[in-house]
Amino acid sequence: MTLYVIGTGPGDISYMSQRAIDTIKRVDCIAGYTTYIDLIKDLIPDKEIISTGMTKEVERVEKAIDMALTGRSCALVSGGDPGIYAMAGLVFEICQKRDIKLLRIQDNENQNSSGDSDKTLALEIIPGIPALAAGAALAGAPLTHDFAAISLSDLLTPWEKIEKRLTCAAMADFVIVIYNPKSKKRDWQITKAQELILEHRNGSTPVAIVTGAMRENQNISFTNLDQIDTADIGMQTVVFIGSSTSLRYLDFLFTPRGYGGKYAI
Amino acid sequence: MTLYVIGTGPGDISYMSQRAIDTIKRVDCIAGYTTYIDLIKDLIPDKEIISTGMTKEVERVEKAIDMALTGRSCALVSGGDPGIYAMAGLVFEICQKRDIKLLRIQDNENQNSSGDSDKTLALEIIPGIPALAAGAALAGAPLTHDFAAISLSDLLTPWEKIEKRLTCAAMADFVIVIYNPKSKKRDWQITKAQELILEHRNGSTPVAIVTGAMRENQNISFTNLDQIDTADIGMQTVVFIGSSTSLRYLDFLFTPRGYGGKYAI
Repeated sequence: MTLYVIGTGPGDISYMSQRAIDTIKRVDCIAGYTTYIDLIKDLIPDKEIISTGMTKEVERVEKAIDMALTGRSCALVSGGDPGIYAMAGLVFEICQKRDIKLLRIQDNENQNSSGDSDKTLALEIIPGIPALAAGAALAGAPLTHDFAAISLSDLLTPWEKIEKRLTCAAMADFVIVIYNPKSKKRDWQITKAQELILEHRNGSTPVAIVTGAMRENQNISFTNLDQIDTADIGMQTVVFIGSSTSLRYLDFLFTPRGYGGKYAI
Repeated sequence: MTLYVIGTGPGDISYMSQRAIDTIKRVDCIAGYTTYIDLIKDLIPDKEIISTGMTKEVERVEKAIDMALTGRSCALVSGGDPGIYAMAGLVFEICQKRDIKLLRIQDNENQNSSGDSDKTLALEIIPGIPALAAGAALAGAPLTHDFAAISLSDLLTPWEKIEKRLTCAAMADFVIVIYNPKSKKRDWQITKAQELILEHRNGSTPVAIVTGAMRENQNISFTNLDQIDTADIGMQTVVFIGSSTSLRYLDFLFTPRGYGGKYAI
């Protein structure tokens, strides 16, 4: 009656936490998108695997919940962090709909109530290093001050809402982290985002484009806001658009916290 | 001539990545705030330690850079992720000021140029699980859609700028993650933030307050936007303010990605 939602971090298992690794080794079954299952396959030679393709999120989470409800322990794994644009939200969405009671593992251990109902799951979400932190570490330090994370995917969100967020984030001088900037079928959104942000920010604003962080296809490039080359951008890309205070230094982008103004450096 | 900037994640070493642990074990010296050094002390029985108090950030980073410039390998550690409201930005700020050349470890290994100058450092930033991801995992899944991270610390940032970011983030319906909500000396900012956000968001908006994520003093509480009790809030607290679509389910806060509208759940 236990469901774990686990983030494997960027790249291979070297960026996973020990708690994530130990838990994955211990559970009865693993559910995840094929790509992530492959990344951790050395850890799980003997597990039952629920592996589904990329557009099968709902099916995958439903199966993991059903498996956990049968009394087995199940880990739902995803790359990066499971709570940032990832599967954790869907677990709650489905459990609420199906009226499945959820107890934090910690609460559950205290109350010793695991397995007292066929509609109760013990739940632990084990965070991972999100793509925005992995990408930032490669780009330099773009996120050391306030930032907004915006997904350009309009599959589940009206584009008007995304536009409003881009405009407000630009107005408020947030560093902007763009998730899902472009796919084969969604190729115009990143250029539109660039235009909206340019209404409130200089063309010379530094931008870092990080693709495949900590993976074999890793690529880091730097440009200015008015010169973004969308050819560098794909499904595995995170784009960092600097605030008015962000700076380029050598092949790095960083956002000073403000120490320079306050202390003699 | 090598500097590592490493995030130890939340809590103890069980949330650190293997890459962070291996690197910390390998370096000659470690610099960090006393609290974080204590958390990893089992890993570093024989290291030289540069440990300084909390307001000594500049001094600590300067010392780590100086140590690395003498030809020794040095790790600058911080809790959470080093790139989100943390030390990584300051490394670039100081190196730019002092005209110290920085090469990514990866570039450096390729070019075999380590140690060719007394003003060059090889640098690797090893990301960690940030407080916002750790807090979100405990709260439920507040960050599965667009969000803005805002620090309420006006020590290094003008309060007017923080107000503008709060207002714009509220207008654009971002989930809002508040860092540094309150300290002994800064006690009114969280209430002012609440007022500003309430101008654009319902009083019934769900809020999660997470203190000391994955530490012994961990505490998770839930409330509504118009009922935030600032007594629950301190230096180690991250506050999650839901968007208009965020929901409370049992003792969890989550933000649906939108699958419910698109697919039959």
